[in-house]
Amino acid sequence: MSNLEQYIRTVNDYPKKGISFKDITTLLKDANALQLTGKELFENAKHLQVDKVIGIESRGFMYGLWLAMQINAGFVPVRKPNKLPSEVFRQEYQLEYGVDTLEMHVDAIQKGDKVLVHDDVLATGGTAEAVSKLVEKAGGEIVQFSFLIEIPFLNGRSKLDGYEIKSLIQY
Amino acid sequence: MSNLEQYIRTVNDYPKKGISFKDITTLLKDANALQLTGKELFENAKHLQVDKVIGIESRGFMYGLWLAMQINAGFVPVRKPNKLPSEVFRQEYQLEYGVDTLEMHVDAIQKGDKVLVHDDVLATGGTAEAVSKLVEKAGGEIVQFSFLIEIPFLNGRSKLDGYEIKSLIQY
Repeated sequence: MSNLEQYIRTVNDYPKKGISFKDITTLLKDANALQLTGKELFENAKHLQVDKVIGIESRGFMYGLWLAMQINAGFVPVRKPNKLPSEVFRQEYQLEYGVDTLEMHVDAIQKGDKVLVHDDVLATGGTAEAVSKLVEKAGGEIVQFSFLIEIPFLNGRSKLDGYEIKSLIQY
Repeated sequence: MSNLEQYIRTVNDYPKKGISFKDITTLLKDANALQLTGKELFENAKHLQVDKVIGIESRGFMYGLWLAMQINAGFVPVRKPNKLPSEVFRQEYQLEYGVDTLEMHVDAIQKGDKVLVHDDVLATGGTAEAVSKLVEKAGGEIVQFSFLIEIPFLNGRSKLDGYEIKSLIQY
């Protein structure tokens, strides 16, 4: 069991009434908690052979690049629409109401690349599933999904069947 | 002189006609260039005593957290409006047409904290200046502005008078 949970702040009724938001900024600003979290993410990934780490905009950019440095991989940002300047793969995904889109440069992942995907939270799994489709389009192979936080009752794992999934804290 | 420039892709007429956009994704996806860039950012910062590293949303989140880990500081995201869940300081800044706003949690920086501010690009300096005002409101002291890229003809340094400014690549 991780004791990182003590550093996370719960903000009630954010972003809307009835939601308890898990705020990682109180963990990040604490130099010791920042190191401890990195150490645990690295422990989960250090045995893997990884060519690229994907970080999902925007909180996934934080530990995403750090993980890439630790395991000697390249770093690839997956971004919200119209943020990447060159040619992209696009993938829509379902929101509670409506759809959203993620984009990745077509030259970001080479065919056969082993890919680790990092984000801060696994909730419904919609964004993670969209990333799996982007990596598939590019011909890469995802070797791990790595999250700080997982919210099991939202059942995001059901959208990522067959993939290795690691999370440090479960609520 | 840095030879990181060779890894940066110039995208012409992005985001609008006449602009030559400097795309760092081609540097980030190359594992060797990613390491080399980190090494140079760290060389510029390793002699400093730093309590917090600020990363400016969203590309500043990438090497920002990595730098915080390297120099044993906490990491603080400065974000676009309405992204941070708890109480914030707000700072408006001027765009070419209109204004924009940045926010930082009021409890992110303690009075007297030494702060390193990181972003990918120093252009007109508007966002960097806004961050300097946020840190001032919190009672912190900025010991360095750290950028990957600087575009000297836009004269961002003029807005950051009196601060130490480091950039790895100048265009």
